[in-house]
Amino acid sequence: MKLVQKRSKKTGLPPGTLVHIGERKAEGVAVTQFNYAGARCDERLVADVTELGPPADGSVTWVNVGGVHRVDLLEALGKQFDLHPLLLEDIANTDQRPKLEDYDQYLFLVLKMLTVGERGEVLVEQVSFVLGRTFVLSFQENGADVFHSVRDRLRGGKGRLRQNSSDYLLYALVDAVVDQYFAVLELLGEKIETLQERVVTDPQPDTLKDIHALKRQLLFIRRAVWPLREAMNNLSRAEGPFLHEPMKLFFRDVYDHVIQIVDTIETLREIVAASLDIYLSSVSYRLNTVMRVLTVITTIFMPLSFIASIYGMNFEHMPELKWAWGYPVVLGLMGLVAAVMLAGFRRRKWL
Amino acid sequence: MKLVQKRSKKTGLPPGTLVHIGERKAEGVAVTQFNYAGARCDERLVADVTELGPPADGSVTWVNVGGVHRVDLLEALGKQFDLHPLLLEDIANTDQRPKLEDYDQYLFLVLKMLTVGERGEVLVEQVSFVLGRTFVLSFQENGADVFHSVRDRLRGGKGRLRQNSSDYLLYALVDAVVDQYFAVLELLGEKIETLQERVVTDPQPDTLKDIHALKRQLLFIRRAVWPLREAMNNLSRAEGPFLHEPMKLFFRDVYDHVIQIVDTIETLREIVAASLDIYLSSVSYRLNTVMRVLTVITTIFMPLSFIASIYGMNFEHMPELKWAWGYPVVLGLMGLVAAVMLAGFRRRKWL
Amino acid sequence: MKLVQKRSKKTGLPPGTLVHIGERKAEGVAVTQFNYAGARCDERLVADVTELGPPADGSVTWVNVGGVHRVDLLEALGKQFDLHPLLLEDIANTDQRPKLEDYDQYLFLVLKMLTVGERGEVLVEQVSFVLGRTFVLSFQENGADVFHSVRDRLRGGKGRLRQNSSDYLLYALVDAVVDQYFAVLELLGEKIETLQERVVTDPQPDTLKDIHALKRQLLFIRRAVWPLREAMNNLSRAEGPFLHEPMKLFFRDVYDHVIQIVDTIETLREIVAASLDIYLSSVSYRLNTVMRVLTVITTIFMPLSFIASIYGMNFEHMPELKWAWGYPVVLGLMGLVAAVMLAGFRRRKWL
Amino acid sequence: MKLVQKRSKKTGLPPGTLVHIGERKAEGVAVTQFNYAGARCDERLVADVTELGPPADGSVTWVNVGGVHRVDLLEALGKQFDLHPLLLEDIANTDQRPKLEDYDQYLFLVLKMLTVGERGEVLVEQVSFVLGRTFVLSFQENGADVFHSVRDRLRGGKGRLRQNSSDYLLYALVDAVVDQYFAVLELLGEKIETLQERVVTDPQPDTLKDIHALKRQLLFIRRAVWPLREAMNNLSRAEGPFLHEPMKLFFRDVYDHVIQIVDTIETLREIVAASLDIYLSSVSYRLNTVMRVLTVITTIFMPLSFIASIYGMNFEHMPELKWAWGYPVVLGLMGLVAAVMLAGFRRRKWL
Amino acid sequence: MKLVQKRSKKTGLPPGTLVHIGERKAEGVAVTQFNYAGARCDERLVADVTELGPPADGSVTWVNVGGVHRVDLLEALGKQFDLHPLLLEDIANTDQRPKLEDYDQYLFLVLKMLTVGERGEVLVEQVSFVLGRTFVLSFQENGADVFHSVRDRLRGGKGRLRQNSSDYLLYALVDAVVDQYFAVLELLGEKIETLQERVVTDPQPDTLKDIHALKRQLLFIRRAVWPLREAMNNLSRAEGPFLHEPMKLFFRDVYDHVIQIVDTIETLREIVAASLDIYLSSVSYRLNTVMRVLTVITTIFMPLSFIASIYGMNFEHMPELKWAWGYPVVLGLMGLVAAVMLAGFRRRKWL
Repeated sequence: MKLVQKRSKKTGLPPGTLVHIGERKAEGVAVTQFNYAGARCDERLVADVTELGPPADGSVTWVNVGGVHRVDLLEALGKQFDLHPLLLEDIANTDQRPKLEDYDQYLFLVLKMLTVGERGEVLVEQVSFVLGRTFVLSFQENGADVFHSVRDRLRGGKGRLRQNSSDYLLYALVDAVVDQYFAVLELLGEKIETLQERVVTDPQPDTLKDIHALKRQLLFIRRAVWPLREAMNNLSRAEGPFLHEPMKLFFRDVYDHVIQIVDTIETLREIVAASLDIYLSSVSYRLNTVMRVLTVITTIFMPLSFIASIYGMNFEHMPELKWAWGYPVVLGLMGLVAAVMLAGFRRRKWL
Repeated sequence: MKLVQKRSKKTGLPPGTLVHIGERKAEGVAVTQFNYAGARCDERLVADVTELGPPADGSVTWVNVGGVHRVDLLEALGKQFDLHPLLLEDIANTDQRPKLEDYDQYLFLVLKMLTVGERGEVLVEQVSFVLGRTFVLSFQENGADVFHSVRDRLRGGKGRLRQNSSDYLLYALVDAVVDQYFAVLELLGEKIETLQERVVTDPQPDTLKDIHALKRQLLFIRRAVWPLREAMNNLSRAEGPFLHEPMKLFFRDVYDHVIQIVDTIETLREIVAASLDIYLSSVSYRLNTVMRVLTVITTIFMPLSFIASIYGMNFEHMPELKWAWGYPVVLGLMGLVAAVMLAGFRRRKWL
Repeated sequence: MKLVQKRSKKTGLPPGTLVHIGERKAEGVAVTQFNYAGARCDERLVADVTELGPPADGSVTWVNVGGVHRVDLLEALGKQFDLHPLLLEDIANTDQRPKLEDYDQYLFLVLKMLTVGERGEVLVEQVSFVLGRTFVLSFQENGADVFHSVRDRLRGGKGRLRQNSSDYLLYALVDAVVDQYFAVLELLGEKIETLQERVVTDPQPDTLKDIHALKRQLLFIRRAVWPLREAMNNLSRAEGPFLHEPMKLFFRDVYDHVIQIVDTIETLREIVAASLDIYLSSVSYRLNTVMRVLTVITTIFMPLSFIASIYGMNFEHMPELKWAWGYPVVLGLMGLVAAVMLAGFRRRKWL
Repeated sequence: MKLVQKRSKKTGLPPGTLVHIGERKAEGVAVTQFNYAGARCDERLVADVTELGPPADGSVTWVNVGGVHRVDLLEALGKQFDLHPLLLEDIANTDQRPKLEDYDQYLFLVLKMLTVGERGEVLVEQVSFVLGRTFVLSFQENGADVFHSVRDRLRGGKGRLRQNSSDYLLYALVDAVVDQYFAVLELLGEKIETLQERVVTDPQPDTLKDIHALKRQLLFIRRAVWPLREAMNNLSRAEGPFLHEPMKLFFRDVYDHVIQIVDTIETLREIVAASLDIYLSSVSYRLNTVMRVLTVITTIFMPLSFIASIYGMNFEHMPELKWAWGYPVVLGLMGLVAAVMLAGFRRRKWL
Repeated sequence: MKLVQKRSKKTGLPPGTLVHIGERKAEGVAVTQFNYAGARCDERLVADVTELGPPADGSVTWVNVGGVHRVDLLEALGKQFDLHPLLLEDIANTDQRPKLEDYDQYLFLVLKMLTVGERGEVLVEQVSFVLGRTFVLSFQENGADVFHSVRDRLRGGKGRLRQNSSDYLLYALVDAVVDQYFAVLELLGEKIETLQERVVTDPQPDTLKDIHALKRQLLFIRRAVWPLREAMNNLSRAEGPFLHEPMKLFFRDVYDHVIQIVDTIETLREIVAASLDIYLSSVSYRLNTVMRVLTVITTIFMPLSFIASIYGMNFEHMPELKWAWGYPVVLGLMGLVAAVMLAGFRRRKWL
């Protein structure tokens, strides 16, 4: 995840000029079309987008575009479905914030898809939807198979999908994307639980890096989900010729999910922040304990060495030196001093 | 309390598919029914939910379901009372946020019940209510006996319960749940008072764990209670064929309680945060004091050992070594140096 | 000030059951009545509350109840003035948040009185008011003499009190309570000023306790005053048969005072927080300075002792040992080394 | 600047009683009057305020009162201009928050004047304005000469002042006060710039005091300016018989200035907070560096002294002691050990 | 970037007096004019601004003023286009916050241009726009070439510019300014990425300065962009005779960009704050590790020296001293003690 997407190739171009912004995540661009009405459902891979267009026979068409870096293709599709240049620009720029925009003839919805990568990292990808009266267009950065359950339900004719109009299809697609969020949060939740134990039992410098990596991931996820709140809230209240009243309950349900996700993200953020506090004080406590033990050892040897150095002095008149029991008595004295000090330190729990 | 509930078994299923999400907290599912009207009150254990339904004779029916993991049962009940699939889904998913939803024919209220477990830990459980004109449905995760006081009042016929319609029953049930919150906060309040003394008088590494455990519990409680504010506020203003005007005062009273609870949680959070600060500076102060004392001891012996080592040198011409009083004078000198240093350190309060 | 009031004795009771919650702050319950109209003003101690009731002759009645733990008395009074059970419950529960509630026939206002106790601590007490067209009821936890200035003005007939209706009396009473806040803040302000000097000139471990005690007091005061903002704002905009238009200016004035108090509390909180920062860095700086000085002393003696120990070696062939000036030269060398090190440390300001 | 003003002398007095709260900042009270209409402009020092009053001849009168501690004078003036007792109370209490109040017949505006004192400290003073249709009253705590530019423009007849009505005069006066804020912020900005360099190049314990003094000053300034936002916003939208439509642009301009000042204060606060962070870590880094260097010195001498003490042992059979080259070889060994350790510490950058 | 601009030269002047506030960034003042209508487009350098004025022939005029320190020129221009004195004041004062103001006959928009200077620093410059029905005036602090792409499109006649009215020109100019923000954020993003690696791998005191320099830059950028949110939001909703309905989509697009930029700034701020935390704990960890290693070394030598000092005592009766193997046995003992301590410290990972 880059902090800031490279947009500089766009600077100076007239607004509305179609330029792809972001990494290129797929090789080719796969365009698939579903056309259905009640019992019927046709599915095909589209080679030439100029054949496409809003159906006029009461059926519903879903065109899914897997890849947004072919701007010529976007432009051709835009012409077929009469899309506004600014809308096409937003589709091609993959650093959009989630948002809902109302272009009279259609609704435009941008959101972020979160998936878990092969090495357990969180991947963020932009998905855009255009909802018209008889069609839904969906644009992914690559052709990731997040909509396969929707496709299966369309093919099988099970559920309510084929009986409903385009707004229900949009709902099904958005719901599939939002469902992915829970999976990502589940994964992060487990990572954070593990982390929480580690900061107490075995705090290492690496732990700090892990804490900050999690913090950063949560920051990115939050940035991807937070604005969706407002977009979904608007969608559940939007009026329009192609949004049917009973659908509002469904979009409100998605809105509830988004709220719940935002809530969970905030909780996870607080817990990661607390983990950082525990880590820091654990590390500091351990280091201090080590220093204290070492210093106690040093302190115990100071008076012992001092006693020895006294009897290492070369005065001619030091009566103790001539005593037969001088040496063992001094050794005993040293042992006594050491014992007293050890006991004192133990009692004060310094050792 | 898990950070994130496992939802992954739901991914890819069509929306509205009934799947239980959360831990299974009860074995069987106990369904009980109360039916009352003024003087009459029938109570029974329901074996077959298809016998249930909204009463038509002006009486009020309360169905309590203890356990939400039997989705077939929920579906059957949903058919009897004509409940929306999304509502049933919310009942079965135990990671809902508290919320109030208006489905024209009935109101749907989700909230969290807090109870104190056997080992003094806080348990969070989801409770859902459906309020219709002549019925109230309540769904618990297990059959915990939080509503026993309401049952007693229904059986005994005391109070206003039997004389009122379904909205008053909902109020009595919600009030019973919210009353539990005070008990939980009382317990936490006492724990925090104890903690506050401990961080000053006897800060131990364990204290840190206790602080963070309390912090986490408060975080979870706050997450459970905070959204209830809005839900109860809406309830105290809701219009509907089955919410009578005089009930608003009662729901406003519950709303006031929730506000008060939220307020107390925030205060407890601030005090726990302050406890962490005191703990950290107490520990740091203690460690530093120990190090200072140890270092003072070491420092006092440095010049003493140095004096001894001077007279341990083997120069042939060291007049002091031959003096009869050399040894006692040097010992006296050492005593003097030690005394002066001790006095100096004492005066500066370093020891 | 307890963090959480004990409410558990209430759990399970039907809502509206009158139970006193909080500490019992007074022995008996003193009920006093003022009845006035222009020139006339009767004052008496009420033995039997059933004699009381809203006056019908255009006069204004003020009933002050000193003590809310006698629930039978509250119930009797409630019957006389036709008060809602929930309102009586709020009066008896002394852990209410300040609030204004409109019960058509009367307004209900709860607020917290702050007074300074004998040992300089801040005491929080709940005061409730019921404002009817011809009466004001006031309920204190004990019979503290905060309203004596209002009583004096009623008795003396000075000021506008007797010429005005019940709303002006409420204003006078609320104003008396709010005036107390300034006295409490003055006291805290002085304590904080003293503290601020102490953290710089003489930071002790006790200072930390004082800082946190002040922090906690401010937290409680804030909790007591903050919700009053909204209550007073509502009061200054409330419409009702017993709130006369010109009174709004007066209640707006009280609202201004509350805002000013809230503002001052926030400032005090920021300054206490800053004091904590200064304290911590002062303490840390002092401890570090001590350690540095001690370590410098140790470091200076290291090379000296080393030199001495060289000439304490027993090699047969050490020419220096036989030199006549060996001893004084080595002593001089030691002095030189010590002087150079001292100078070096001084120059770097390490000593 | 005191944290909390002494208000206790007011406690217990009936509301509306005129008592001066705050320090007495001027000796006498200077009342000046300007009366102008187009070409004419009379200026005089007023000895007896009972001569004053709203002009009836279409001219505009500006009365400036320098000092608010003479409550008798305020009361007399209040009678002449028919001012509400609460308004007079607000003028006499110098701890008001900035606010705008609408008293039908006139507008009342309180704000805080910031000036730079002789020793570079920020002085806060309360200025109140009453705007009537034909008059403006202004009240200062002392007679500070902040309005001299307005007076000059009135005398000279330059600019738009004399051609406009009382609202333009109010604007000119408020603008003069707000202009002072910029001067104060300029000064603080320079102090903070200096501070920012000092915390990096030469952090001293005194620096901490300076940081907190600046923090406190910014806190007070913010408290003085923040509420002005709302007051000026209301003024730029207020309707009234004496606020002419074209004036709104001018008050909006003052509002913009206030927003800009608030913005700058917030920026300065963030930078002071960052300075504190830098200071603390600079000091800590320096102290740690000193300790590290000292400890390295100590550590280097430990093995050297140890070697010397070995050859200080008195065993009869220690062959090295008899070697002719024993002494120089051991000295060389010591030099080698010291060199190796020095090199090792240097390489790791510990020295 | 100065914290506070010098405004003191303005204090005391009547409001509306035109004074330039800010640094003088350009030598002369270059005034250029474009006049176009469909196919035609005239461009010229204007020497005398009194020739300018709103075109009456349906064409659009764009006057760009490069430099705002020549107040005489601004006044002359103001007279030609009938601009309000307060508007001219805002143009000349380069410390304005971004804002949109509606002066009936024209809209006034102030914003900040961000560019990257030669040494990679961020430069902030004020740009003001006046949008009339047939003209756009733009004012830059210097004649920076940020509008060259707009000029090229006007000259070339490509795009929609010449076919549209003045509002589209304003959009093109604002879009060019906002596009620059992305470039600046890209640069900062890269710097922060580099920083993030450095704080972990090689934390130096200099790193702290870099972190705070970035923090400060982000603070300034945020201050420049944040208020633009509201201004652009208002612009996308503004009604007026010269704002055509279809333009709203375009301004909403700019608004979206601003939101996205604000969002990115907040993310960058959080990441810089986290970098500071990592830096501080990295540095502290490193310092502590060094101290621990040094102390371990010291501690190991303490008992060794003590043993040697024992056998350096001069007692006559010390049997060990006469043993033939005494010396090697003691050396062996020393080696053993050292080995045991080393092993112990290693095992506990203290070394």
